[in-house]
Amino acid sequence: MTGNSLDQHMQRYAQRTNGMRASAIRALFAVANRPEVVSLAGGMPYLKSLPLESLAAEAGALVAEEGLVALQYGSGQGIPQLREQICQVMALEGISAHPDDVMVTVGSQMALDLTTRIFCDPGDVILAEAPSYVGALGTFRAYQADVVHVAMDDDGLIPEALFAAIDACAVAGRRVKLLYTIPNFHNPAGVTLSDERRPIIAEICREAGIAVLEDNPYGLLGFDDRLRRALRADDPDNVIYLGSFSKTFAPGLRVGWVLAPHAVREKLVLANEAATLNPPVFNQMLISRYLAKFDWLGQIKAYRNTYAERRDAMLGALQTHMPEGTTWTDPDGGFYVWVTLPEGFDAAAMLPRAVTARVAYVPGTAFYADGLGSRQLRLSYCFPTSERIVEGVRRLAGVLDNELDVMRTFGTSVSRPAVGPASPSPDTA
Amino acid sequence: MTGNSLDQHMQRYAQRTNGMRASAIRALFAVANRPEVVSLAGGMPYLKSLPLESLAAEAGALVAEEGLVALQYGSGQGIPQLREQICQVMALEGISAHPDDVMVTVGSQMALDLTTRIFCDPGDVILAEAPSYVGALGTFRAYQADVVHVAMDDDGLIPEALFAAIDACAVAGRRVKLLYTIPNFHNPAGVTLSDERRPIIAEICREAGIAVLEDNPYGLLGFDDRLRRALRADDPDNVIYLGSFSKTFAPGLRVGWVLAPHAVREKLVLANEAATLNPPVFNQMLISRYLAKFDWLGQIKAYRNTYAERRDAMLGALQTHMPEGTTWTDPDGGFYVWVTLPEGFDAAAMLPRAVTARVAYVPGTAFYADGLGSRQLRLSYCFPTSERIVEGVRRLAGVLDNELDVMRTFGTSVSRPAVGPASPSPDTA
Repeated sequence: MTGNSLDQHMQRYAQRTNGMRASAIRALFAVANRPEVVSLAGGMPYLKSLPLESLAAEAGALVAEEGLVALQYGSGQGIPQLREQICQVMALEGISAHPDDVMVTVGSQMALDLTTRIFCDPGDVILAEAPSYVGALGTFRAYQADVVHVAMDDDGLIPEALFAAIDACAVAGRRVKLLYTIPNFHNPAGVTLSDERRPIIAEICREAGIAVLEDNPYGLLGFDDRLRRALRADDPDNVIYLGSFSKTFAPGLRVGWVLAPHAVREKLVLANEAATLNPPVFNQMLISRYLAKFDWLGQIKAYRNTYAERRDAMLGALQTHMPEGTTWTDPDGGFYVWVTLPEGFDAAAMLPRAVTARVAYVPGTAFYADGLGSRQLRLSYCFPTSERIVEGVRRLAGVLDNELDVMRTFGTSVSRPAVGPASPSPDTA
Repeated sequence: MTGNSLDQHMQRYAQRTNGMRASAIRALFAVANRPEVVSLAGGMPYLKSLPLESLAAEAGALVAEEGLVALQYGSGQGIPQLREQICQVMALEGISAHPDDVMVTVGSQMALDLTTRIFCDPGDVILAEAPSYVGALGTFRAYQADVVHVAMDDDGLIPEALFAAIDACAVAGRRVKLLYTIPNFHNPAGVTLSDERRPIIAEICREAGIAVLEDNPYGLLGFDDRLRRALRADDPDNVIYLGSFSKTFAPGLRVGWVLAPHAVREKLVLANEAATLNPPVFNQMLISRYLAKFDWLGQIKAYRNTYAERRDAMLGALQTHMPEGTTWTDPDGGFYVWVTLPEGFDAAAMLPRAVTARVAYVPGTAFYADGLGSRQLRLSYCFPTSERIVEGVRRLAGVLDNELDVMRTFGTSVSRPAVGPASPSPDTA
């Protein structure tokens, strides 16, 4: 007897539930939390560098001084003061915006959800990089939107590939609603859209009548001191921008935002109210106090230094330990390295053996809507220390060596063959 | 030029946005916050009775002692400890549940959103009391579900009316997915489903193959000492139960929950992850500490005493001031009195004149999906002091007297006539 045969509601679910399935990342949370496993899987920021003592005092003061507001219902758009501060944060990336056009959300995930909600009917197409953020793919599926992937290389999304994808959709009579893109320190690919391509990508979408959904949680976490100009900075009418405090401050408060053209923002606020009434007021006020009173740019610098050191540790270990034929990206910021294994490997099938060897990663297939990515995997360097990262990569290399042995002995992998043609991986395309 | 003609995205929105519109409550928030207006409109709990000093200490201790967990990503289902405590809270109403079947949400509004998401395709029918919670109607609209209202009387939902509604939908070939009901201290109607009717309502739905969505934010806020047995207590397989800490503790943390049969809960967790990744960990841990360390039942008792006194003040003032022919409900708990004005009044049209007279309420039409309720309005007694409530009702009576004068002089109201037949108001049906 399966669980489903016991489910008396089985005939009652909405069609959209057909596409809902557990993500690879979710299944890994339990594993990743076991202390003996080096988890290179999650995207959890390294919170130990936060000033917890003074944050504690601030959280207490917020309740004591403004508890009657912080613990009460609030505006569906978010508190005005935080929306002003968010405009100041975005100004770092060249964005000139009015607080009226900002809406606070329960993490930028909720902004992703609501934007999809107001734009996408079932069957509408969303263009997204190949690979793309697993959480976005899940949201798009939940609204029965179809993802068409667009190839990247080391300079990010390839304009010619974007143009071709739009063309192919037009020929097939499919309605493309959004380009979903992570221009900076891509999750999972670890690459960044070049300065030269930014206006080209924006123009292609503008001309094609496709709104751009610019997801930028990592933009301030570059390892050089250069700030990348947001797509939104030069195209306020056609770009919907998503930001987050999860990576630059802390994810446990779940505060993100969306900046959208005025008419879009109006619809988003109605959708936000239908979904949550309003984002938590306490969380917004705590972040507002943090931005007003703490050296938040200094904190971001501390995060960057930590992550840069760990990136170096990971790249060094990959260089030392990976078998011949393995390639990987070289991120200038953010949390992730994207690894492509030699022909014959299957990262998803290999995962249980990796976990047995006490190392975890996210298989590449999680980041594709179309089953590609079987030879690929995402490694994150944000959370474990450099020593642990090196040890994790060493363990991973051991697993790969064992797989190679098996393949040499039996002339084939124990795993399923790679699905379809090798997807255009960012480092090899 | 209208706003829409400037909206280059106008042709790109999803069909579901057609039904999205600003709620009457939302438009009133700005008005209600002006100090000279007595707002009988909002459903804000009276937070002044919270122990803010010790809560402040607790919030600080949480960050200092467990900040690395509280500020980090967490489980999409919610933290286990809080889910266990939620089971203890629900046990007060006769519910026996396992923490595995509880999912924490961003307020119970989010639970409402996700339940609708997994059950309702466009055009599916949700049965709901007449009138029903404005926020639920907004959520149902956002998923293009159609609401069919079912009449209430002083004992809540009328079983015969429910049966007839199900029958009518069957004859019309419409697919009914859910009965959405607020059994206790109904928002906005202020009535409570009688003990006798509870098993009957549950059985009708079970027999008809319709899941029950039991929304119970006010259940612990009864003014007698009697606890009403939840529908879920006697029908764990067919009832999905929504709970909230917004009314019994504080809404600014946005923590609610859903208790659902196992297979439904699995789908809900996937939907929760697609929407928010996870509910805010900090907020969950703070409430968990509150439940573990504070006299939360004593706090609920304090709330109840406050609200009972204010209910008395409101009912007394209505008795003293309302014009002949006005009727209202007599709530045993919760926040709201539902008022039906004499023939000829239009509560929505009258609202601007009421606000000019410095009193605010929510017009009855907000609580119907079908345009009824024009002679009705919701008054809340939760937030203003008794003195302010009496003053507010006095002002409202002045507005009604003026309207009556105009009607007598001109033989008609200055307002639009009541829409359709007088809806079956809970106190007159």
